[in-house]
Amino acid sequence: MVYNTSGGIVPGKLNVHLVPHSHDDVGWLKTIDQYYVGSNNSIQVACVQNVLDSLIPALLADKNRKFIFAEQAFFQRWWRDQSEGMKITVKMLVNSGQLEFINGGMCMHDEATTHYIDMIDQTTLGHRFLKEDFNVTPRVGWQIDPFGHSAVQAYLLGAEVGFDSLFFARIDYQDRAKRSSDKTLEVIWQGSKSRGSSSQIFTGAFYAGNYEPPTGFYYEFDSDSPVVQDDMDLFDYNVQERVSDFVAAAISQANVTRSNHIMWTMGTDFNYQYAHTWFRNMDKLIHYVNQDGRVNALYSTPSIYTDTKYDLYESWPLKTEDYFPYADRENSYWTGYFTSRPALKGYVRTMSGYYLVARQLEFFSGRKELGPTTDSLADALAIVQHHDAVTGTEQQHVANDYAKRLSIGYKESEEVVATALGCMTQASTSECKSLATKFMQANAPELSCPLMNISYCPATEVDLSRGKKLAVLVYNPLGWKRTEIVRIPVVNENVNVRDAAGQLILSQLIPIVNASIANTKFYASAYLGKSSNVSPKYWLAFTAVVPPLGFSSYVISSDKLGASVLSKQLLYTFEWSQSSPIEIGSGSLKLVHSGINGKLMHYINSRSMVNISLEQSYSYFTGYDRSADYQASGAYVFRPNGSFPVLSEEKVPLTVFRGPLFDEVHQMINSWIYQITRVYKEMEHVEFEFEVGPIPIDDGFGKEIVTRIKSKIGNNKIFYTDSNGRDFLERIRDHRTDWDLQVNQPIAGNYYPINLGAYIKDENSELSVLVDRSVGGSSIDDGELEIMLHRRLLYDDSRGVAEALNETVCIEKKCLGLTIQGKYYVRIDPLGEGSKWRRSFGQEIYSPFILAFSEQDDEWTNFPTHTFSAVDPSYSLPNNVAIITLQELENGNVLFRLAHLFEVGEDKDLSVMATVDLKRVFANKKINKVKEMSLSANQERDEMEKKRLSWKVEGSNTNERKVLRGGPVDPVKLAVELSPMEIRTFIIEFN
Amino acid sequence: MVYNTSGGIVPGKLNVHLVPHSHDDVGWLKTIDQYYVGSNNSIQVACVQNVLDSLIPALLADKNRKFIFAEQAFFQRWWRDQSEGMKITVKMLVNSGQLEFINGGMCMHDEATTHYIDMIDQTTLGHRFLKEDFNVTPRVGWQIDPFGHSAVQAYLLGAEVGFDSLFFARIDYQDRAKRSSDKTLEVIWQGSKSRGSSSQIFTGAFYAGNYEPPTGFYYEFDSDSPVVQDDMDLFDYNVQERVSDFVAAAISQANVTRSNHIMWTMGTDFNYQYAHTWFRNMDKLIHYVNQDGRVNALYSTPSIYTDTKYDLYESWPLKTEDYFPYADRENSYWTGYFTSRPALKGYVRTMSGYYLVARQLEFFSGRKELGPTTDSLADALAIVQHHDAVTGTEQQHVANDYAKRLSIGYKESEEVVATALGCMTQASTSECKSLATKFMQANAPELSCPLMNISYCPATEVDLSRGKKLAVLVYNPLGWKRTEIVRIPVVNENVNVRDAAGQLILSQLIPIVNASIANTKFYASAYLGKSSNVSPKYWLAFTAVVPPLGFSSYVISSDKLGASVLSKQLLYTFEWSQSSPIEIGSGSLKLVHSGINGKLMHYINSRSMVNISLEQSYSYFTGYDRSADYQASGAYVFRPNGSFPVLSEEKVPLTVFRGPLFDEVHQMINSWIYQITRVYKEMEHVEFEFEVGPIPIDDGFGKEIVTRIKSKIGNNKIFYTDSNGRDFLERIRDHRTDWDLQVNQPIAGNYYPINLGAYIKDENSELSVLVDRSVGGSSIDDGELEIMLHRRLLYDDSRGVAEALNETVCIEKKCLGLTIQGKYYVRIDPLGEGSKWRRSFGQEIYSPFILAFSEQDDEWTNFPTHTFSAVDPSYSLPNNVAIITLQELENGNVLFRLAHLFEVGEDKDLSVMATVDLKRVFANKKINKVKEMSLSANQERDEMEKKRLSWKVEGSNTNERKVLRGGPVDPVKLAVELSPMEIRTFIIEFN
Repeated sequence: MVYNTSGGIVPGKLNVHLVPHSHDDVGWLKTIDQYYVGSNNSIQVACVQNVLDSLIPALLADKNRKFIFAEQAFFQRWWRDQSEGMKITVKMLVNSGQLEFINGGMCMHDEATTHYIDMIDQTTLGHRFLKEDFNVTPRVGWQIDPFGHSAVQAYLLGAEVGFDSLFFARIDYQDRAKRSSDKTLEVIWQGSKSRGSSSQIFTGAFYAGNYEPPTGFYYEFDSDSPVVQDDMDLFDYNVQERVSDFVAAAISQANVTRSNHIMWTMGTDFNYQYAHTWFRNMDKLIHYVNQDGRVNALYSTPSIYTDTKYDLYESWPLKTEDYFPYADRENSYWTGYFTSRPALKGYVRTMSGYYLVARQLEFFSGRKELGPTTDSLADALAIVQHHDAVTGTEQQHVANDYAKRLSIGYKESEEVVATALGCMTQASTSECKSLATKFMQANAPELSCPLMNISYCPATEVDLSRGKKLAVLVYNPLGWKRTEIVRIPVVNENVNVRDAAGQLILSQLIPIVNASIANTKFYASAYLGKSSNVSPKYWLAFTAVVPPLGFSSYVISSDKLGASVLSKQLLYTFEWSQSSPIEIGSGSLKLVHSGINGKLMHYINSRSMVNISLEQSYSYFTGYDRSADYQASGAYVFRPNGSFPVLSEEKVPLTVFRGPLFDEVHQMINSWIYQITRVYKEMEHVEFEFEVGPIPIDDGFGKEIVTRIKSKIGNNKIFYTDSNGRDFLERIRDHRTDWDLQVNQPIAGNYYPINLGAYIKDENSELSVLVDRSVGGSSIDDGELEIMLHRRLLYDDSRGVAEALNETVCIEKKCLGLTIQGKYYVRIDPLGEGSKWRRSFGQEIYSPFILAFSEQDDEWTNFPTHTFSAVDPSYSLPNNVAIITLQELENGNVLFRLAHLFEVGEDKDLSVMATVDLKRVFANKKINKVKEMSLSANQERDEMEKKRLSWKVEGSNTNERKVLRGGPVDPVKLAVELSPMEIRTFIIEFN
Repeated sequence: MVYNTSGGIVPGKLNVHLVPHSHDDVGWLKTIDQYYVGSNNSIQVACVQNVLDSLIPALLADKNRKFIFAEQAFFQRWWRDQSEGMKITVKMLVNSGQLEFINGGMCMHDEATTHYIDMIDQTTLGHRFLKEDFNVTPRVGWQIDPFGHSAVQAYLLGAEVGFDSLFFARIDYQDRAKRSSDKTLEVIWQGSKSRGSSSQIFTGAFYAGNYEPPTGFYYEFDSDSPVVQDDMDLFDYNVQERVSDFVAAAISQANVTRSNHIMWTMGTDFNYQYAHTWFRNMDKLIHYVNQDGRVNALYSTPSIYTDTKYDLYESWPLKTEDYFPYADRENSYWTGYFTSRPALKGYVRTMSGYYLVARQLEFFSGRKELGPTTDSLADALAIVQHHDAVTGTEQQHVANDYAKRLSIGYKESEEVVATALGCMTQASTSECKSLATKFMQANAPELSCPLMNISYCPATEVDLSRGKKLAVLVYNPLGWKRTEIVRIPVVNENVNVRDAAGQLILSQLIPIVNASIANTKFYASAYLGKSSNVSPKYWLAFTAVVPPLGFSSYVISSDKLGASVLSKQLLYTFEWSQSSPIEIGSGSLKLVHSGINGKLMHYINSRSMVNISLEQSYSYFTGYDRSADYQASGAYVFRPNGSFPVLSEEKVPLTVFRGPLFDEVHQMINSWIYQITRVYKEMEHVEFEFEVGPIPIDDGFGKEIVTRIKSKIGNNKIFYTDSNGRDFLERIRDHRTDWDLQVNQPIAGNYYPINLGAYIKDENSELSVLVDRSVGGSSIDDGELEIMLHRRLLYDDSRGVAEALNETVCIEKKCLGLTIQGKYYVRIDPLGEGSKWRRSFGQEIYSPFILAFSEQDDEWTNFPTHTFSAVDPSYSLPNNVAIITLQELENGNVLFRLAHLFEVGEDKDLSVMATVDLKRVFANKKINKVKEMSLSANQERDEMEKKRLSWKVEGSNTNERKVLRGGPVDPVKLAVELSPMEIRTFIIEFN
């Protein structure tokens, strides 16, 4: 029996585009490698190797068959294993359009908990592979599973990578109902106000809210859909019935879709493990449905579907903002995952910043063909952007696997960093390029300290009293000069800090409390399998001044007197009420705590004249169990069952440390929350450092911990949160722009993802909070901002992960609930002045100083280069621009990305066109050629602009005002202009 | 990565023969077609189409890979669908030995509940296809799943089809332990005492008691065995660990196996649905295990394994008798399935006999190329021999499917029969061959009555009082003349029966009781969706005399007087004890019932001088639930929990009908058992007709109903049961020949399958019981024989079928427990004289008269041919020989099988060489050529004899006495000799 699948599109009929696909999670219930090789099947029967192995012969069997493949992390694993003959076959299938790469990143990244730089990096990794090995540039965004959809996805990872369309499944159930009723599931989405019409993309939300076929048309080997039984010699012949069901399902979908083209996503999670079963049945469906003639069925792809829709020359409704938060039904808001696994989220953010640094240094010292590279970190970071990775919605063993990959990547990148810094202190960067890795490693400083946040850093815990010295290299990955406080743990009391010129500089010592040391030992043992013998006694803090893209060096030594200033320590117990308030901060910013109960009361900035009452507290939600409607709070879903303040009515003793550089307030809020409030003399924000955990569960309740910042700012339900660390979007409590919201979860339904920060404002002031990782947050009451810091839950939330989100840390048999340590930053500005801090300090949070240490007897301090900057000594990047990529490619060219950090109208000084002088950025190099590329660097920008489909928006006129954009780069002047929110990507060829 | 799989056998090393296979049940939890196309996957993920589709490319990918395929019912379904190109490819794979057909029947037939004629037929069907399409003769018996193994399997369906070896998994757990300890899992099995050394076959019982790989080496797509992960770039590399596990498993098996060759069965139920997953992993295992070098692994087949074992020139231990009963653990005797689904078992047996008839008539009237054929019945019967079909161990919907197939096959064969008889009454058989089917159908008689057993037969229920007549054709499929009572339901009282010559003959009327009519209406409605308007009033019985392979005709008419004798009816209620016994039987045999309580007391045969006390009763076992060791009584397992007599102490009223042809005793034993005891004037056995059901379950207990025949015969624990209706095997209660039996189930563990009958004996007499279908039975106490008639159970017995064996019959919503109607036959002979009756009457039970009816006004009785016999009028087959196959093949040749019915020494007159004169059997034909074939007719007998491996038996000398065998057939004399128990198969070419 030969089936006729060659009909293609038939005008005038309802065309059902069958799009064969497999949704292959880059880790979820199993690790990526388990999914690839098909091991651990007792958890889930899934083997991506089988998908690809079985797909190729299935495509070869009928040239009309098509398939789309998304996740390059899997594809690359498979590709490495293939013979030359198979590679030729696959290329043929790609060239003929039978096999189409879609989305094309390493994974289908999450859109809520990811930073835009990570999204760009992981997409670039996949896109460049496809370009190099297949000469292919993916055309379609395929974010079918992520749990809500971000504006940055639409305009940056959509429009700016050259996609012509974007498809996904999950939007809020109320939104879906509305869009179904008025046929607006398919829209033109404008993701950025600043980038306007150039940020638009045709976007389709799937009909059924999932990425699966209509009920009854699943054809995985183990599906229980009725197969098309067309053998008259056998029992259960069912062709008429299957055809009628097909037609009915098609008509039902057509009723909510504009035009006579609909798409059926023929596949689901880890399908096509034996591709033949799908194609066998789809061949029959196409054959018999077309024979029937009521509708027309064809093998298709989202590209074909997109072109078909485009060719209709119709106008489509406009959609702005984003698709957050996502609820799949009443009381089921997927806003818990914004915070789930905060340790992993923190690790990912730290590694993201580190990857940027490591690539810079790899470039300065020259990428080594054999030596260590940043590639394994690139790969690990790419994978962990997956929508069941950084989201925290994977099983525990899979979370461990991600962390392990990051750790391996970090270790290798750390070698890159250490050898580069080692060499750069000994020789010029151009010499480093030609020096052998061996030489460089011999001269490398001690490695940096990834566990320094818990004061574990053997490199600095050397006994300086015996005449040793500790050299500290401080690297600044940003394009502007920075002056910041550096803190390291030390064991000695009488220490000095000298700069590279040998001058003593001001430094401050803060005692490390015993409780903290116990914690350090436990976590160091748990993570490293060992702990230090010595315990650090103090944090030593000093001010480091570091040039752009460069390093400074400092030397710490000990003598009997010691120049470092020991902080003054004062304890306030409030056992006897004292009337006078406690004030901290020795610079412009002062915080006032109540003298009666120690609570934060007031924020005063004498420079900006902000004087405002401010409270800060902790609360927790108890997670809903499954008693009522089976919707527990879990890894995905935030389903609070009451909010409880953490000791907010109690008097919490304060310990205050005062010193010349900063003041600290230590508070043991309760037995499982410890907080340090820090005010730097030279800075105008408050730094809150918290330790939360182990969250107690012995009362049988899971808990989700939030911190609340409370002011009198009259924000009238309006607050702002960032999209993937980039554009800020306006949020209105209990309100959606696109439909009339039925409120059933007044807290969870108002949570939004936060990657950079959030703020509220009124006519006078704006209150901003910046975060050090992805979190969820909201403004539940006017004047307030709340951030969820940690979650520990006892029930699975029935979305497949099949585990309660109950993270523990174990040493042998002893397990404790995971403690989270982190920081958030608060500042209040006069109205209109907050964005400067949010943007530039936000960038500094993302790219902290990187430290390297070398214990020396006396020699190392004599290294030839004490200080370094890659840029012209008289140059600095403008304050509104960041280098977000500086990476030497395998061919020696450099991938270079600049990002304007401000939106249109955000800041009166900085929301303007900026210019970067490439010649001075690469002061010591000779630029041969600069090519501007698409965001993912897989095609030239011009070419992309030419190809991209230009969609018509309902009610708009095509001659609308052009969006401001930097001009072309003059090959002689080499100045790059950036308009607000613009990101420009270049491949630079040096001589 | 290319894996080296080419090493083959390495002498001196332990060789692990990896045998890739899929065990594909021809129906079990799903129907055969559901299994084939992969529908109904919610019950079981199984798709044989996928197995074969995916297998071919997997074999093509590496010429060292091998696969064996058994079930031709599946293979033929697939083969029909393949393109010419694919067929060429598959033939190439078969020719190269990569794909080997094993066993080769349509299914892997059961060995307990199957009749040997059915086993032969279904094997022939598969083997002839393989011969014709592939020129292949399977070499190995592969009965890996059946639940115990029969002697007939070994010697008939093994040695006589030319197999060189036989393999299976399931033997008693105690037997396995013993055989493991003394390395006798592999033996030479001599299945027949009569056929002696020529019935021997090399037989291997698998090491682990299943047909699966060692734990940890399952590679189905959904297996959770650890895949061999040899990609160093991925996590979880495990080659060393997998190799070590492999070596350990191999050594463990080698420790209980003779020689350094062991077989691993690489597959299990419905495996290789994506064959690639198995081969991918086995490639790696072979590669790395051989690289390791401790043992040698290779792709192999049972044929290669057999040849390897043979080439060792070793002697093997001898095994006689069979492998029944089978227990897989303590208290788990698989002896329930001997009786499970007695209605299906009865239907199968009836259809088996009918198929033999239909083929005879198809041959006589000429096989029609277009018209109806017997092929669909052949196919249905073949499939239902499967070890989860006739066994009764399938799910209910699957049992329904089998019945439906039989019914469809029956309907088509009935057309063959009706048109053939119609034509043969109108014209000569040679004319019938050339007449058009249309003509023949126009003259066909009314169809026969498959529900006649419940007195539903519209064809005979015509009102003869209006001058109509009813012609009855009586066909005798046996080779000897028979005189037997025929019974049909009629609506008139005053009827006459005349023979073909117009002579009135003696006939007898027995009233049909009202209860029976209600039952008839219910079952007719349930099975046919309709019921008759008229109710028959009487059974009309008369004596039909029919020539060999021929028919006689009788005419029934009505007149006011009516010649038929109405039986005398007498009711005995025993309310007032009467002293005189009640005697029935007007010929040699008399039965005496007690005058006090009506119970059977005595059996008296005045001719043979047997005068013996005899009791008969019903009892039931309550099925064990799952309370103790989770072993319930179920479809497979018989696990009784106490035995309870059915009213044995009560007085059961008797109704006696006496007439000139036979006497009947009717007893309503209880509300759900009705019994008729029948003694024919001219016969010397007792016929018990029973109706059992609906078995009550409202007390919460499942029940298994047995009938017990109790005598004073001192059989001293010894009894005899047949093997698949052929050889009788000696059974000793609580004893096994091969090991020292630990008795844990004194009833279930002594049950054996019965297809023909069972008997016990002492120095004086033998008591025989013959059955009308497959049942289980035993002799639990000396002097007794018991037969299990029906089972209704409330728990699944945990062997996979996942349903309780609780058969019901429904009309709309009204469901009743299934009632079983059937017969068994009892006779007592002087010692040494029983076999004559058992063998020849047993054959008559298998091949009853077939009736056809024609309602006529007066004309039909004038048809030219009133009587017919295919054989020479002066000829009859010897009493010890039966024609078990007479079938016109598609090429016009005839497949002809003769079976000697007696064992060596069984009867002083009949256990001798017999001769059949082919010329007189085919009186009206001219035989051109006679070729003697193997049993399955797929090769010439000589050729088979030459090829078959001749194994050495431990302690025996090779020059032992030759087994008696019929000599070659002289092409002129055309006389076929048959020695005891010999079956000879011929292809006859007529002119």
